[in-house]
Amino acid sequence: MISVGVCGFGYWGPTLVRAFASNPAFRVAAVADAKPAAQDRVRALSPSVELYGEAQELVDSAEVDVVAIATPVLTHYPLALRALRRGKHVLVEKPMCTRVDEARELVAIAERMRRVLMVDHTYIFHSAVHKLKELKTSGALGEITYYDSLRVNLGLFQPDMSVLWDLAPHDFSIMNYLLEEQPVYVEATGYCHVNQNLPDIVYITLHYAARTIAHLNLSWMSPVKARRIAFGGTKQMVVWNDLDFDETLKIYDSGIEFRSEDERRVFIPGYRIGDIYSPRLARGEPLANLVEHLHRAIAGKEEPVVDGRAGLRVVELLERTQRALDSSLGKIAGLHTPKAPARIAR
Amino acid sequence: MISVGVCGFGYWGPTLVRAFASNPAFRVAAVADAKPAAQDRVRALSPSVELYGEAQELVDSAEVDVVAIATPVLTHYPLALRALRRGKHVLVEKPMCTRVDEARELVAIAERMRRVLMVDHTYIFHSAVHKLKELKTSGALGEITYYDSLRVNLGLFQPDMSVLWDLAPHDFSIMNYLLEEQPVYVEATGYCHVNQNLPDIVYITLHYAARTIAHLNLSWMSPVKARRIAFGGTKQMVVWNDLDFDETLKIYDSGIEFRSEDERRVFIPGYRIGDIYSPRLARGEPLANLVEHLHRAIAGKEEPVVDGRAGLRVVELLERTQRALDSSLGKIAGLHTPKAPARIAR
Amino acid sequence: MISVGVCGFGYWGPTLVRAFASNPAFRVAAVADAKPAAQDRVRALSPSVELYGEAQELVDSAEVDVVAIATPVLTHYPLALRALRRGKHVLVEKPMCTRVDEARELVAIAERMRRVLMVDHTYIFHSAVHKLKELKTSGALGEITYYDSLRVNLGLFQPDMSVLWDLAPHDFSIMNYLLEEQPVYVEATGYCHVNQNLPDIVYITLHYAARTIAHLNLSWMSPVKARRIAFGGTKQMVVWNDLDFDETLKIYDSGIEFRSEDERRVFIPGYRIGDIYSPRLARGEPLANLVEHLHRAIAGKEEPVVDGRAGLRVVELLERTQRALDSSLGKIAGLHTPKAPARIAR
Amino acid sequence: MISVGVCGFGYWGPTLVRAFASNPAFRVAAVADAKPAAQDRVRALSPSVELYGEAQELVDSAEVDVVAIATPVLTHYPLALRALRRGKHVLVEKPMCTRVDEARELVAIAERMRRVLMVDHTYIFHSAVHKLKELKTSGALGEITYYDSLRVNLGLFQPDMSVLWDLAPHDFSIMNYLLEEQPVYVEATGYCHVNQNLPDIVYITLHYAARTIAHLNLSWMSPVKARRIAFGGTKQMVVWNDLDFDETLKIYDSGIEFRSEDERRVFIPGYRIGDIYSPRLARGEPLANLVEHLHRAIAGKEEPVVDGRAGLRVVELLERTQRALDSSLGKIAGLHTPKAPARIAR
Repeated sequence: MISVGVCGFGYWGPTLVRAFASNPAFRVAAVADAKPAAQDRVRALSPSVELYGEAQELVDSAEVDVVAIATPVLTHYPLALRALRRGKHVLVEKPMCTRVDEARELVAIAERMRRVLMVDHTYIFHSAVHKLKELKTSGALGEITYYDSLRVNLGLFQPDMSVLWDLAPHDFSIMNYLLEEQPVYVEATGYCHVNQNLPDIVYITLHYAARTIAHLNLSWMSPVKARRIAFGGTKQMVVWNDLDFDETLKIYDSGIEFRSEDERRVFIPGYRIGDIYSPRLARGEPLANLVEHLHRAIAGKEEPVVDGRAGLRVVELLERTQRALDSSLGKIAGLHTPKAPARIAR
Repeated sequence: MISVGVCGFGYWGPTLVRAFASNPAFRVAAVADAKPAAQDRVRALSPSVELYGEAQELVDSAEVDVVAIATPVLTHYPLALRALRRGKHVLVEKPMCTRVDEARELVAIAERMRRVLMVDHTYIFHSAVHKLKELKTSGALGEITYYDSLRVNLGLFQPDMSVLWDLAPHDFSIMNYLLEEQPVYVEATGYCHVNQNLPDIVYITLHYAARTIAHLNLSWMSPVKARRIAFGGTKQMVVWNDLDFDETLKIYDSGIEFRSEDERRVFIPGYRIGDIYSPRLARGEPLANLVEHLHRAIAGKEEPVVDGRAGLRVVELLERTQRALDSSLGKIAGLHTPKAPARIAR
Repeated sequence: MISVGVCGFGYWGPTLVRAFASNPAFRVAAVADAKPAAQDRVRALSPSVELYGEAQELVDSAEVDVVAIATPVLTHYPLALRALRRGKHVLVEKPMCTRVDEARELVAIAERMRRVLMVDHTYIFHSAVHKLKELKTSGALGEITYYDSLRVNLGLFQPDMSVLWDLAPHDFSIMNYLLEEQPVYVEATGYCHVNQNLPDIVYITLHYAARTIAHLNLSWMSPVKARRIAFGGTKQMVVWNDLDFDETLKIYDSGIEFRSEDERRVFIPGYRIGDIYSPRLARGEPLANLVEHLHRAIAGKEEPVVDGRAGLRVVELLERTQRALDSSLGKIAGLHTPKAPARIAR
Repeated sequence: MISVGVCGFGYWGPTLVRAFASNPAFRVAAVADAKPAAQDRVRALSPSVELYGEAQELVDSAEVDVVAIATPVLTHYPLALRALRRGKHVLVEKPMCTRVDEARELVAIAERMRRVLMVDHTYIFHSAVHKLKELKTSGALGEITYYDSLRVNLGLFQPDMSVLWDLAPHDFSIMNYLLEEQPVYVEATGYCHVNQNLPDIVYITLHYAARTIAHLNLSWMSPVKARRIAFGGTKQMVVWNDLDFDETLKIYDSGIEFRSEDERRVFIPGYRIGDIYSPRLARGEPLANLVEHLHRAIAGKEEPVVDGRAGLRVVELLERTQRALDSSLGKIAGLHTPKAPARIAR
């Protein structure tokens, strides 16, 4: 059995522990968390697990083959680096790290050490994403025209993270997986309503050489949660509503008819609505799929789908978007009316 | 009774005729349309109406007190100008015209001639907009943080109009009415999938001095129609789903708690969901409300709510947005891979 | 052109007038209504139509080839009888009449006079019903196991009609058309909350020799309108939500697997959910389809689908259900606690 | 700490173990299940728990203060009886048992032994039921006119249980709790499509002396799961959709206006739709609430809400409904066409 150590037992750590414990190939040997309350919860759940207050100690432990990193994002890079250098395999939460140069270093060291470096972009193991990929690859959708994501909720505001770094990694990993192409131009804007310098609403538009346009509406200021992605092609269009458990994906056998370039100048497409088809999706839990995939990657049976290079591409997109966002926020910074000294809570 | 002449009997003309005929203050005296089929439909519907092939002739007719203009957008300016100069009142479809200088001229001539110039921004007479205005004015929403509009459908593509000029006037008129402020900075991007030079997907972000951010997602490429506006404040947030007849507006008694500036630096808002309240809306048809308002404006009993100046402000926003859109499209124009000579329809 | 006279210009009469006026084979020659306000509305809408205060006079008019009867249900029988005797074709609102013996007489006289007697069971011309019929006939559904209808709203209470006679004719006509079989046993119960002797909630269960069970939940006491029919077969099941314009019919490629009788005793079916498929339905208005069908029936080109015999079968079901309902209401009548003398409105 | 033994580790047993383990007042000391696979799962989950192959042995163990019974329904009575006789407190799954005389005996022995006998009617601890009870008790709803439940899904068919005994206990416990009254007349019908003698579709109507009518539509043959209860009063009506997590309860400030008896004879209520209000519900898990309530009942701090008498009343309703159902099924038994010898699975 492969021995796993989990760093961080806050929001996602317990989920990782459960996922590894449910896979017969893995054994959770150690957990690290500095908070006494988290340690108590580990003891109650699995008394036999080795407990560490310092994540580095867990990383250094000879008992651990795989280090799973679910600590705050700024610690991803140093922990992953240390683990890889010690010859451990690494599963790191998304985003892999906060800088492209750090991401490149992690990729390089993982390749040099011949260890698996996987990023927990769980959506890549979601049956809806598999179906979208299949529909695109088979040509059923035609040429991809757009990816449009509405990903909003009432935010769990974090003191050191913007909505961009919290929510965009989901879309960026899905888009990279589906489109297999990086955008040629990135635009972004938004606003910080709650914490200065940490936008809570961000709008991103990405342009691709293949003429796909992608748009993300990310917000922590919405009273209603929405997770809705529209993925359009010249032949079919798909709407993925991740909060609809019965009809998660709907495929619209309808769309715009294109003719050749010459015809297009005079052609006016009609309004055509065809059948709607909601395929059955496999019910398997994405994280369980990811853990089994990690097992097979470590065993050399499969190439990791979301390896360090995939994680790097997401960090690259985050950095490019952050630059576009900073540029837009800079332009509007001086245009607001000065604020009243204090705004009273109701 | 006030005598009305309607120019254009295509998509919207018959609706205008019906609305005027249902108001006892008005009488539809004349209709103008060059198309024989349209003329036949006029004759079948109301045999006693005067029929014109040329809209100018209708405008010149001494029988007509009010000219209602429902012709293609490029003809709005010359027809409205001619009508106002001849001392007629004018109701013109949105957008009022396609250029700011033309819009200014129409406003000026209407004021000089002391005639009513109204623009058919019908949404301003929708009970949902009234409710939003009331909630904002009463302070129930707190300070407005955002306006977010999803306005998409499978397009009735038009050979001479982009999705911007087709759909944005709705939001721009509503935003102007609710916010009573013009944005300090406008960003826009999009893409032309079907007709070159006529974007069918447009994303717009508008920044206001009062720190409101507004965003519009406009598309003719969506297989599902959506008309959903979220209007957020520091105290309450409202979601308006115009396709939900039972629960059109939902008010969320929940949100982000703000403290004073100092506190804000350390404050992390919580996730709080309160009651949801869906107020009963008056069922009156917006266009009937508009026609009655036009009647009262002509009679000098009410100031026109969507007068020429309101129409001008919408055209100004359209022009500013078009410039931002052109700038973005210019940047991405050279970045696409050359196209294959022809794309075959399926 | 066939000349039509419409009796009754209340709720449904104007709709009938519009439907006949839109079909080039018909001409609306006359309308009868005793109410001055209704007569005013006729004059405003179509000044050239002959107006009658008494329906009998319209029926007797030599100008009228077809009599359309949209008067209160108790007058259906005498008016239809008089019209058929005078050699007119008849279209009568549902239910055809209130007694089986009257219905039989109407069928007999129509056949003797060789005139078309059609009942306005409009749903039979609804594209959803056509699709259900097609799915059943093709064997796609397998053997039909159940028909389950939820047909509730906040009632437009009528002083002389129960919810049974108001709403059940819709389901009864659809069931007769789909199942082509009359039930072998009928059960019904309900209660009168508003008007004594006129139930406003009625529950009906019908058992068929072919082992189909049908159930109707009819109510005028529901705050939410629902029109939802589930139609189950051994192979596929369909849910028809008539208030969902985008996905009116949903076909579930899932269900119970049956084995032979012997196996069934030990067999425990599994829970299986397959794909969901929402077919595109023709958008034609059911009433327009019905009017064209009436035209072709009068011209001898088609056998009337909802002729007098179809209307009779619905009245037979209504009478059987009324007897079952009376029997149940009789049993519970004495079991209630005596009422307080008056209940005050809030 | 109170020591609990759980009999049965199939579908519900693990949930009970987790619920007791999460309450600091309880300790799970023992689990009984004859199946080796179930025993393996117990060992993996909590190695320190005492394991029994025979439930009786667990019941007899001196280590156990409370026996929780989650075994097949036919074993509820003997196990509960044995546990109470040995002076244990008992929590038994719904329904408490299958016969009224057995239920009476359990109530009697629990009272004689002064032990808590609770039935796991979990819904009574659901915040939606609390809200409904509060709305009724406060008079906000006015007089209760109806309870209408749609409780359907694609069945997990069981070889020894009908849909009546599987699903009706939920509604019966809720109705008893809300209405505080037993019906004066019960009607039921249904059909057995899959297993002979075990109806998979059942329709029940219950009439109350206070003029409330209750109706249950229970089915294992629906392709779509629905859990929808409408609860109507003369002043307000509530719709509870248990599958809608955001707007579980909707309260309609609308309804029928009643006048005094005399007025009612001529009064025709209007159609009035007011505001819709969806109150925030407490998010606590019902089963956790029940376990804490059991703790307080054992400690003598609270009277058990769903005690043996509440369980008995549900069994009484089940027996009455079964008799009505048998009577209806008897009447239709001979009316079906003889079946073909075998029906082949597709």
